[in-house]
Amino acid sequence: MRTLFGDHPATAPLDGRDVQFLDTTLRDGEQAPGISLTPDEKAEIALALDEADVEFVEAGSACTGPGERETIARVTDLGLDARVTSFARGVENDVDLALDCGVDGINLVVPASDRHVEDKVDSTREAVVAETVELVEYAKEHGLWVEVLGEDGSRADLEFLTELMGAAVDAGADRICAPDTVGHATPDRMLEIYAELSDLGPTSMHTHDDLGLAVMNALVGVAAGADLVHGTINGIGERAGNVALEEVAIALDHGYGVETLDTEMLYDLGQLVASKTGVPLAPNKAVVGENAFTHESGIHTDGTLKDDAMYEPYPPEKVGRTRRLVLGKHAGRAGVRAALAEHDIEVDADDLGDVVERVKRLGDRGKRVTDADLLTFAEEVQGRERERRVELLDLTAASGSGTPTASVRLQVDGEERVASGTGSGPVDAAIAAVKSALGSASNAQLDSYHVDAITGGTDAVVTVEVEMSRGDRSVTVAASDSDITTASVRAMVDSLDRLLADADTPVLADD
Amino acid sequence: MRTLFGDHPATAPLDGRDVQFLDTTLRDGEQAPGISLTPDEKAEIALALDEADVEFVEAGSACTGPGERETIARVTDLGLDARVTSFARGVENDVDLALDCGVDGINLVVPASDRHVEDKVDSTREAVVAETVELVEYAKEHGLWVEVLGEDGSRADLEFLTELMGAAVDAGADRICAPDTVGHATPDRMLEIYAELSDLGPTSMHTHDDLGLAVMNALVGVAAGADLVHGTINGIGERAGNVALEEVAIALDHGYGVETLDTEMLYDLGQLVASKTGVPLAPNKAVVGENAFTHESGIHTDGTLKDDAMYEPYPPEKVGRTRRLVLGKHAGRAGVRAALAEHDIEVDADDLGDVVERVKRLGDRGKRVTDADLLTFAEEVQGRERERRVELLDLTAASGSGTPTASVRLQVDGEERVASGTGSGPVDAAIAAVKSALGSASNAQLDSYHVDAITGGTDAVVTVEVEMSRGDRSVTVAASDSDITTASVRAMVDSLDRLLADADTPVLADD
Repeated sequence: MRTLFGDHPATAPLDGRDVQFLDTTLRDGEQAPGISLTPDEKAEIALALDEADVEFVEAGSACTGPGERETIARVTDLGLDARVTSFARGVENDVDLALDCGVDGINLVVPASDRHVEDKVDSTREAVVAETVELVEYAKEHGLWVEVLGEDGSRADLEFLTELMGAAVDAGADRICAPDTVGHATPDRMLEIYAELSDLGPTSMHTHDDLGLAVMNALVGVAAGADLVHGTINGIGERAGNVALEEVAIALDHGYGVETLDTEMLYDLGQLVASKTGVPLAPNKAVVGENAFTHESGIHTDGTLKDDAMYEPYPPEKVGRTRRLVLGKHAGRAGVRAALAEHDIEVDADDLGDVVERVKRLGDRGKRVTDADLLTFAEEVQGRERERRVELLDLTAASGSGTPTASVRLQVDGEERVASGTGSGPVDAAIAAVKSALGSASNAQLDSYHVDAITGGTDAVVTVEVEMSRGDRSVTVAASDSDITTASVRAMVDSLDRLLADADTPVLADD
Repeated sequence: MRTLFGDHPATAPLDGRDVQFLDTTLRDGEQAPGISLTPDEKAEIALALDEADVEFVEAGSACTGPGERETIARVTDLGLDARVTSFARGVENDVDLALDCGVDGINLVVPASDRHVEDKVDSTREAVVAETVELVEYAKEHGLWVEVLGEDGSRADLEFLTELMGAAVDAGADRICAPDTVGHATPDRMLEIYAELSDLGPTSMHTHDDLGLAVMNALVGVAAGADLVHGTINGIGERAGNVALEEVAIALDHGYGVETLDTEMLYDLGQLVASKTGVPLAPNKAVVGENAFTHESGIHTDGTLKDDAMYEPYPPEKVGRTRRLVLGKHAGRAGVRAALAEHDIEVDADDLGDVVERVKRLGDRGKRVTDADLLTFAEEVQGRERERRVELLDLTAASGSGTPTASVRLQVDGEERVASGTGSGPVDAAIAAVKSALGSASNAQLDSYHVDAITGGTDAVVTVEVEMSRGDRSVTVAASDSDITTASVRAMVDSLDRLLADADTPVLADD
């Protein structure tokens, strides 16, 4: 009979508990397919983790190779407040290699389930216990902080796991852990295990998200007595990843009033790790995903405008972010009115209804509604005819074995301007040509340039989104084309046209 | 005092429980910023959900507008086994609009927390109860299946929530739900609520993932008596998203032996929804993410080659997937040997060590290790000099206002070939030119073409990954350049060169 919480009440109060973090972004996180961090990148991430008050940083796995050892040594040389550790397998050489890197401690991983004891390392339970004791004593003699992890602990025989971990503690281990290596465990199983382990000594949690239960499994261990949680920023790691450290931190804070690290740094940490590892964040990733504090639907936008907390569990500032309201097919009147006000446009009730209709119609066609779209709708509805100040008449871009080169012909305030440019690729060259055609007087800057991932064929339609600003005004524009160069230039020219719409100054510099 | 499970034992066994799903991908999922599904897209997703044995499909929100109503009607016309429902706010007009779409039932959402009762809809608790009763009676009179959701239920006063839900049941509601609208609740809170609601009538769970606890909150409600779970494919939805239906299904199945829908369809469902909504999946997304069954590190690859289950909680086939082993900086001997064997290359122990070294060194530089890299290393180590059969000598691509056009000069089996092509953009044109230069005898096909999302500037380096096959051989190749056209052509030419390496037949067709 399997129940959610078995017969363990686990009613330990969490209030006032002192919970620490061991960040393993640089070790278990980096083990995810396709990730490799340079020494400088690991150092930059380690410094940010230290600044956020993470207590332990597992910097890597010294046995991986000389490149990895150089990287770990780079982190140990930083003089962090956090203790720096290395992963080590249950062999003496791994402990020696970790010592060579100057770490404060090791995360010593020994097999715990029969599958690992017998099939993976071809050993016996007795031999594993004996070797573990020997290695812990060896590491302690060399002055290391030692955490012993019984690999695949959640699938291990609990009696043997307890024997193994008890022997480790007796040999001098500072801490023991039964990692849910393969993301197999349910919370009742973790509770069952940690009810036993907590009696032996200080314990830590190491959970994976294969069943979507990583956060809960960490919390349930804390309830049973663990006071150190392993996690990675953005939840990167093998397979479905390790538990996301930012999710545990915010669940403890918002859910149970347990303060741990500096939560206001979580967003920047997430962005840093995403950019250095190249592992993109899903927009709906908790805490750090692009949309975690974004509201589009009319009901949610309207509610949020009345009361910030209407549709949010905690304020975005708590994790170093700000709220965003965007428009789309589910838009309502309150949201559209607020968006227009940001561009200093007032509309009466009838016109507002018409603009909302147009926004929804564009949204219905599966399109994102950008600032440029909204402004065009307002002009149409209010009968404000507007001459475009900047228009693209012609574009030519050439690239390949030679220097990427492009030319544009623009109409600017009724006057034709032709200019050319070169760049690192055709898009870059074309953007240079546009800048050259407008001259410095346009005084606008490209704040962000984004292209969604392209999958499918080489003829896929590509959507380019740009955000440009001029003085204190900024606009977003999207353009789609099966030619990335054309889409990029169109988005940029439309942005410039919008930014210059209300400008009194002539766009063109005197020739 | 806040504890994980309060004082509710929640020891109800899950074994043998009958749990059903209400999929709200087409409603709550679509409310996420930037998503808009056409009628055809909603119909395609609804059909796939029905095929996977989902019991309820919430097709949309009839009050959103005429476009949305057309879409809902399109789904109700499909004749699904699943019941089709529409979201409705607590106003009679919304119920009428849902009826117009021909739905089987409604998800009637009424305010439950004081924040929603007072600040959002400017009403009173008494008025909300009275209106809810009236609307339930109205909807039942019109033959609808009625589920009443007390919005923001997790932040509501439990006494009022119970009164409201009790009144709904008395008025004839088929089912009641206390949604965790803003992703605020911890499992103890959900348990507290559902211990009360389960006494009133059939209940359902509706959870969000802002704290990373969406799956657990759904499970805890089921333990307390709920037998219907709302979720979305890939966990799309407002902010951090709704609970991912595939995660609840697999947690119930693997964790508690509770079978629900056809889990073998989960991967295809995830791919379908990702492609139709344009919301990308993080590689580390549980169940459906690209890396959920991928192993790169030496320890994990070695273990997996000894025993499939060594580093996986359940076999990938259970969710309609296959296992992948890839190479990178954490590669080990067993994984490299297995990868070489896939290309029919045998190496002795010394050479294997050398190849592993080179793989790790490339990985250390932050590069992905593709088939082409591995084959090159093996050739170098084994001293097998190889003449390239296909080489890119020159590339020119032009695009812009005219027809995208490109030409290539290739060396094929020592002979120069020049060809040109046109396409929907410069990449497409250049690929057409390569195909034309090689002629049909190359007989290879482009199986996948992928470019990571581009952020930063217009001069960012772009990495293009292609997978090509010829007969029963396939290779992956990556190429990076700040010009997307150049990167694409290089990747394709290198793939073709690899695929033709062992081919006896001449590449070039007779002229």
